[in-house]
Amino acid sequence: MDIIVLKRGAASKELRRIVKKLEAKGFKANISKGTERTVIGVIGDTSKITEDEGSAFQMMPGVEKIHRIIKPFKLASRDFKSRNTTIKIGRSTIGSKKIHVMAGPCAIESEPTLLKIAKEVKNAGATFIRGGAFKPRTSPYSFQGLREEGLKILAQARKKTGLPVVTELMDPRDIDAILKYADVIQIGARNMQNFRLLQEVGAHNKPVLLKRGLSATIKELLMAAEYIMAKGNNKVILCERGIRTFETATRNTLDLSAIPVLKNLTHLPVVVDPSHGAGKWDLVAPMAKAAIAAGADGLMIEVHSNPEEALSDGDQSLKPAKFKKLMKELKLVAKAVGREI
Amino acid sequence: MDIIVLKRGAASKELRRIVKKLEAKGFKANISKGTERTVIGVIGDTSKITEDEGSAFQMMPGVEKIHRIIKPFKLASRDFKSRNTTIKIGRSTIGSKKIHVMAGPCAIESEPTLLKIAKEVKNAGATFIRGGAFKPRTSPYSFQGLREEGLKILAQARKKTGLPVVTELMDPRDIDAILKYADVIQIGARNMQNFRLLQEVGAHNKPVLLKRGLSATIKELLMAAEYIMAKGNNKVILCERGIRTFETATRNTLDLSAIPVLKNLTHLPVVVDPSHGAGKWDLVAPMAKAAIAAGADGLMIEVHSNPEEALSDGDQSLKPAKFKKLMKELKLVAKAVGREI
Amino acid sequence: MDIIVLKRGAASKELRRIVKKLEAKGFKANISKGTERTVIGVIGDTSKITEDEGSAFQMMPGVEKIHRIIKPFKLASRDFKSRNTTIKIGRSTIGSKKIHVMAGPCAIESEPTLLKIAKEVKNAGATFIRGGAFKPRTSPYSFQGLREEGLKILAQARKKTGLPVVTELMDPRDIDAILKYADVIQIGARNMQNFRLLQEVGAHNKPVLLKRGLSATIKELLMAAEYIMAKGNNKVILCERGIRTFETATRNTLDLSAIPVLKNLTHLPVVVDPSHGAGKWDLVAPMAKAAIAAGADGLMIEVHSNPEEALSDGDQSLKPAKFKKLMKELKLVAKAVGREI
Amino acid sequence: MDIIVLKRGAASKELRRIVKKLEAKGFKANISKGTERTVIGVIGDTSKITEDEGSAFQMMPGVEKIHRIIKPFKLASRDFKSRNTTIKIGRSTIGSKKIHVMAGPCAIESEPTLLKIAKEVKNAGATFIRGGAFKPRTSPYSFQGLREEGLKILAQARKKTGLPVVTELMDPRDIDAILKYADVIQIGARNMQNFRLLQEVGAHNKPVLLKRGLSATIKELLMAAEYIMAKGNNKVILCERGIRTFETATRNTLDLSAIPVLKNLTHLPVVVDPSHGAGKWDLVAPMAKAAIAAGADGLMIEVHSNPEEALSDGDQSLKPAKFKKLMKELKLVAKAVGREI
Repeated sequence: MDIIVLKRGAASKELRRIVKKLEAKGFKANISKGTERTVIGVIGDTSKITEDEGSAFQMMPGVEKIHRIIKPFKLASRDFKSRNTTIKIGRSTIGSKKIHVMAGPCAIESEPTLLKIAKEVKNAGATFIRGGAFKPRTSPYSFQGLREEGLKILAQARKKTGLPVVTELMDPRDIDAILKYADVIQIGARNMQNFRLLQEVGAHNKPVLLKRGLSATIKELLMAAEYIMAKGNNKVILCERGIRTFETATRNTLDLSAIPVLKNLTHLPVVVDPSHGAGKWDLVAPMAKAAIAAGADGLMIEVHSNPEEALSDGDQSLKPAKFKKLMKELKLVAKAVGREI
Repeated sequence: MDIIVLKRGAASKELRRIVKKLEAKGFKANISKGTERTVIGVIGDTSKITEDEGSAFQMMPGVEKIHRIIKPFKLASRDFKSRNTTIKIGRSTIGSKKIHVMAGPCAIESEPTLLKIAKEVKNAGATFIRGGAFKPRTSPYSFQGLREEGLKILAQARKKTGLPVVTELMDPRDIDAILKYADVIQIGARNMQNFRLLQEVGAHNKPVLLKRGLSATIKELLMAAEYIMAKGNNKVILCERGIRTFETATRNTLDLSAIPVLKNLTHLPVVVDPSHGAGKWDLVAPMAKAAIAAGADGLMIEVHSNPEEALSDGDQSLKPAKFKKLMKELKLVAKAVGREI
Repeated sequence: MDIIVLKRGAASKELRRIVKKLEAKGFKANISKGTERTVIGVIGDTSKITEDEGSAFQMMPGVEKIHRIIKPFKLASRDFKSRNTTIKIGRSTIGSKKIHVMAGPCAIESEPTLLKIAKEVKNAGATFIRGGAFKPRTSPYSFQGLREEGLKILAQARKKTGLPVVTELMDPRDIDAILKYADVIQIGARNMQNFRLLQEVGAHNKPVLLKRGLSATIKELLMAAEYIMAKGNNKVILCERGIRTFETATRNTLDLSAIPVLKNLTHLPVVVDPSHGAGKWDLVAPMAKAAIAAGADGLMIEVHSNPEEALSDGDQSLKPAKFKKLMKELKLVAKAVGREI
Repeated sequence: MDIIVLKRGAASKELRRIVKKLEAKGFKANISKGTERTVIGVIGDTSKITEDEGSAFQMMPGVEKIHRIIKPFKLASRDFKSRNTTIKIGRSTIGSKKIHVMAGPCAIESEPTLLKIAKEVKNAGATFIRGGAFKPRTSPYSFQGLREEGLKILAQARKKTGLPVVTELMDPRDIDAILKYADVIQIGARNMQNFRLLQEVGAHNKPVLLKRGLSATIKELLMAAEYIMAKGNNKVILCERGIRTFETATRNTLDLSAIPVLKNLTHLPVVVDPSHGAGKWDLVAPMAKAAIAAGADGLMIEVHSNPEEALSDGDQSLKPAKFKKLMKELKLVAKAVGREI
């Protein structure tokens, strides 16, 4: 069912032309003449009307607006599959009662630093190790990551800790290396509508963690998931990581209401990354708790490394300790909402 | 301390003129000539430089940008008062370990309906009754509230239940009526920068619940609080109720990160209104839990009434029952973060 | 005509209840059962369904979404009145072929300064003098305006130059003073949804310049105009002055596409204030030209005064000269689009 | 010059540690102790401080905030190159007095349709033909473009009309095909921060038309240009095409103030795409005029094709006629601001 609203005073010639066009495509037109507007209900399987065909109707003379009733995503929709999707990775199942925490440094810098952090986050209760080998940086002059070297270090960390590895793919040309080393392929926020990259990861059977773009609506996030699923890969984990708003006190605005909205619209699991919306520990901890209280299936948390040369002392080395404290607090919140960590 | 950055290649004549102007106002100029830019550090009590004087400096020839270091709010700032403000209203203290829930209908429709709801929310654990007598409506053709008649009904509800009353003031000309009947004066989101209204409530000693405007930054919310406090009224409760973003799946985007940010910047208590960002129960419940997990001092929740003529049956009468269930769940989350309800 | 979309799998009991309720209110229900959803077309004069009644339908069991076809504004709509509204103020007619420029300082500081500017802007071709006597300031510590004293100075400037006066009303309690001295009452962006203020200016016969709120949609701007018109005052001039977005390089984002969108939806004249979105002359000039090219009926431009004590020299005193230069350039652009200044 | 603001009451031990770290990196620290805050001016070539090093300082104990004075882009900055960049493509020079109009269909559908449009837009005065062979579509079920087949059709159109070709690259793996057929490589809004794609086009000598992302700040657009330029390709044309805001009356909000802001910050030419912010002819025409009035160096305009099967008649076939009319109007506006088309 789609709805076509005609302009006030649209000519009956225009109405006839639209009805004829609908019938030529196999639809039936249900016409309601109101006092102010005439409205056409399109009867038939309108999910087959493509975006382009919809636009073509929109441009016909006499048409004011088209309301599309059917959601544009199918495979990702709860209408299509009502039961929650669970994704098994190693011994962990994302989307189950257990909340999974993916922790690790922003970028991989060296094997010893990563191993140290991996062990610490595992001891604190994290069930995945995350870290970037390919780094999307705003500036071309910033560190771009260790690339394949970084992936090998991640694999070492998995070997030593047993934690599955989450890492980002930025370029379809790196897919083989990522498939070789990663357990979950991350698609970053800036690539959420890099459709070729989505199709590439859709063509493989590896779980994908899909981050919401900075200005992507919840529907667009689901359409991006649909791109992956349409290629055959149903193992999609959605990730809320903050949207861009006018507020400047935080780097982004973490949209926690996206969790219940997504739970309503889709069967896919939802994790939250409180680190990227914040950047400061004093925001990460309360937002991590809030995400769990709101129903998230997992968290992705940056635990900073302590490269000797970067910062000589003190504050950074406390970070794993703070993470450990946070994990304890998160367990209590998870329990309060009937989940566990 | 303020910082004045000069344009690349600013003339030394321009620099001298700025320094002279600063010195005429009693400041000392600390000049740093870098390879790319010259920067002037303004030494002295720059908190006395008004917005207008700042703009005047901004327009001087040779000036690229002014960074103001001192926060523009004073009385509302944690720099000014480091301990949390608590506000005692009847037997309730906002800003204490106990989280307060303010519940009630959007608009007051009649005495029997309000009394019924007031009793129900009290039994479920709410400690304040809320309801609108003056209603800000987007359309001039919508119900604008019962006005003073509504205030009297609220006072009746307080008499019967003992719950203090929160209600909105829209017009400075209604201040006497509000002072007579309300325990907390609500300033709505659309009036957050109605400066005359802020000054009016600042001139009295009644607690004020100040809602964040739809497009107000956290700093602007604090400046609005400053308007009230500058007139002598320190009893200001801040309220996050959702900001306007590009997302259309929710009516507004509830910005829960505002809670820890505000806790950092100000000593004032912070409550959250999950109803206005959502409008649907399936979003209100998770967002209420998340708000508490993130550190809110209270919640404002709309509990719908059941006017016989509006909706003939069923769904609405369940609302108080759902509120009761939610209150039970909130108690668990509050406990998990060391608070109580 | 309104459209009610039912939830997938809504029960036929739910459908019957909705139809019964519609019929009880005097509407006819046109039911279309699609393969995916059932949709009800509501036939009758749905413009009489209030916001509240619409919400009540929204909350009925089985309802997924309501699409309202009729625009919520009536008197402001081009559906209601197809010919452009023109507003005669003194010898000037807003909404005619001639584009009117309203110029003057942000705040009125003294009679001599205002008179000087008034003469200069008149010589350059401005047809209205603008200036604030009541100033909405973000900080309670900033200059709040000369109040009635400022209004008297404006009246002096009108007497000396013949230019009608535009000035802002912030508080309904100041209406008498404004009616006495002003030719056009300005409602500022922060008060666009101060509904009591709108009703107050709607109750008089004085033209109103209504500024778009920082986060107001175009529809909300028209609903605010409707508030004024519903009280009997049809002399409403709409003003685009920039909306709040994520961009920080400009103070606001001037939404020039609002001009053609408004011209389509309403018969009211549209002016643009390029100064408030920008604050710098190097942006004001190109945006003023662009506003005219896009079809604006007028411009409101801040011409800075030169108080001796604020800025000792140079740059500010050039401002009226720059305004004169801009006016010459604007004449050329106006001519290119078939208008005149 | 960078500025480090310390927290109120930062310990002198913390100050010493920061100064030591700065000196270790070869900078000099200029310390200003104010009454409220201590501020450190960093003296030396701070443009060499990377994003990462900046963050490291941000996380040091005692640091409240870092203000970076130097712009993060260099090659794209007007500080680096003060004269406007002009880019010669065939017989056309972008960035000169002449304003260039790039016109054509959204997607290439067939050779005859494209040739027809190409001739029509050329006759109307367009100097480039645009059209998509690779199409970024929100839905995986929408037409994705003719791919290399489409590029060949574009090359045919160039051969027949002499108009250089602008077309989009979505995937680095298609670079060879694009280099073979295109005269200007378009990077779409959704790929503005697809850094690998930027690096790929940076490694060749072909002009690049870089579209601003839907939620990209002006600074981020310039950083994306910097990515291309840092690889050696200076032929970058910036394109404003609308940003995402809360307004729903238009698809996007065309940010015309970006034109003068960009002209101030960079030497690169700026074109505007009014079609993507609008989608309706009644918005495209006024916004195209406004863009020229605001100083744009060019326009990119979609001229719809008229595939027989898509729309049987009337409205679409008028499109080239409307484009012709618009071009005449644009010539007048261009002349009014001292340019030509």
